[in-house]
Amino acid sequence: MRSNSSPTIKDVAREAGVSMATVSKVINDLPVGKASREKVEEAIDKLGYQANTYARALKSNKTYSVALVLPSLKHPFFAHLTDELTKSLMRNGYRALLMITNYDPKAEEKCFAMVRSNKTDGVIALTYSPNLNVGDNIPVVSIDRHLGDNIPCISSDNYRGGELAAKKLIELGCRNLLHLRFSTGIPGETDKRTAGFEFKCSESGINSHTLVLRDEGTEAPFYCFLEEHICGEKQEYDGIFCSSDLLANQIKRFINERGVSVPDQVQIIGYDGIPDRFTNGLTCSSIEQPLAKIADAAVDLILNFNGTSEGANICLPVKYVPGGTTKD
Amino acid sequence: MRSNSSPTIKDVAREAGVSMATVSKVINDLPVGKASREKVEEAIDKLGYQANTYARALKSNKTYSVALVLPSLKHPFFAHLTDELTKSLMRNGYRALLMITNYDPKAEEKCFAMVRSNKTDGVIALTYSPNLNVGDNIPVVSIDRHLGDNIPCISSDNYRGGELAAKKLIELGCRNLLHLRFSTGIPGETDKRTAGFEFKCSESGINSHTLVLRDEGTEAPFYCFLEEHICGEKQEYDGIFCSSDLLANQIKRFINERGVSVPDQVQIIGYDGIPDRFTNGLTCSSIEQPLAKIADAAVDLILNFNGTSEGANICLPVKYVPGGTTKD
Repeated sequence: MRSNSSPTIKDVAREAGVSMATVSKVINDLPVGKASREKVEEAIDKLGYQANTYARALKSNKTYSVALVLPSLKHPFFAHLTDELTKSLMRNGYRALLMITNYDPKAEEKCFAMVRSNKTDGVIALTYSPNLNVGDNIPVVSIDRHLGDNIPCISSDNYRGGELAAKKLIELGCRNLLHLRFSTGIPGETDKRTAGFEFKCSESGINSHTLVLRDEGTEAPFYCFLEEHICGEKQEYDGIFCSSDLLANQIKRFINERGVSVPDQVQIIGYDGIPDRFTNGLTCSSIEQPLAKIADAAVDLILNFNGTSEGANICLPVKYVPGGTTKD
Repeated sequence: MRSNSSPTIKDVAREAGVSMATVSKVINDLPVGKASREKVEEAIDKLGYQANTYARALKSNKTYSVALVLPSLKHPFFAHLTDELTKSLMRNGYRALLMITNYDPKAEEKCFAMVRSNKTDGVIALTYSPNLNVGDNIPVVSIDRHLGDNIPCISSDNYRGGELAAKKLIELGCRNLLHLRFSTGIPGETDKRTAGFEFKCSESGINSHTLVLRDEGTEAPFYCFLEEHICGEKQEYDGIFCSSDLLANQIKRFINERGVSVPDQVQIIGYDGIPDRFTNGLTCSSIEQPLAKIADAAVDLILNFNGTSEGANICLPVKYVPGGTTKD
């Protein structure tokens, strides 16, 4: 008779008619005969046995958990990315250990220290620290940032995204383009949005100007520039590419309030393409990042890490999505 | 000389001039003399020693991790709540194990089975399954749902929130109130929003009508009702209380598109009060939930669980915040 408490390895052995050592081998993925393995797996299913992950972690040196280090969940891009990463890990039988850093380099260092001592099977990180001490005992995959030569980086195809934004604005009739972006100053994948945008403008013989600011929340210089070059007597630009949907919305609101019509007088394209839950649609025309694919690629790299991913840099395709701030 | 690799318990013992057994006692919170404890703690600080959490978990029967079971991070309410819960756990030296269920009762059952076998120190859950098998080996705190007599539930003061919405609409001149809400059919804390709203209307002698629908995404009957009673020749209601900001925004858009002006002809109040990152402000007037306080209360209950929280039901105060869909 089975007891009412959780089945143990002993119960599984009895049910399968094998030794406890054999059950242990199956659970810890050690070599064992096919017939025995099948019997044990059937018994595990029948009894609903679940290994104690901690004991198992010590034995197999695997924790079946991956740390997710992210700045915040209050920005929809990070919330959607974390949602996809967690679901992808769970589909693979792994657990997601969430760490929120609030964009603080010290908190990022602390997360990596915790991760090293906790011996998770890996880290997927989106960080802002310029000189993050990642350590080399643990697989790390970075999103949108290069953390080191031997750390793979996954991102949307930022260069192509920039090109695509310029191409679309030009196709839709714009002849003087402006690019507004934030940059932390730490070289990252997102810099390529600017490079792709400027290349396409130059290739097409279209006048363009780029304005870069440090840190979100310090938009004032953008507004001064817009006041002088778009909202005043002269309207020198008719198309704007912004480094995020968030910025695109701020810019739209600012010039709208000063009587400039979007998209009639000025067309705007953002970046991210995250649908807004409040309005059920896009908040602006945008370059859409393939978040579910970025998540799956990051998880796949971590779970199949073999130490040879040196220089791996995975770019996943973006697409243009119209969302009301362009004339299409 | 210290080695370059991570310091071990042996290094700490040598540095502190005590035995490894003494270090182990300090790490595992067992009784040990004050002088020895201080020496060990100094050595740990000096060497930057970090215990292997898994080994420690087995010895102390503590994992220093808490599972967060939530439906999705794509809804801003859940994303903000998860952000606050994770930060609160981290401030307490705990790890957040994130599990996303996509509103699927089977996935919720699976999460609780995983949690039981993984032996986390507790679970903070926001679930939709009507008969969730929580088990009783592990501390559980529920948010907005009653999971059982012995499981504490934390929520915003939903009854007061409903009262407050009615009170504000009446103060702002509304005389015929409508309440639109979704309900999963599973009795929950959020039902009290309706009770509070209806009580206040009745107490004030104000005509009110409540319409309840199952499941988000099936708003059609709301729209039919609005078409007939607000957007047609007669405008029978001048104030609407919606069960979320999301619904408030959908309703606002629908009646706006049919030529009814908000807030001039109809005033709307939602629930949640989550600022929208895209517009940097509220998307509607709302009853604001104290998310950081809800998170702290949930974490506090889990970390100080002593099995005597029977019937605990913590309500945290809400406040009204104007956000453009009312006349204030």
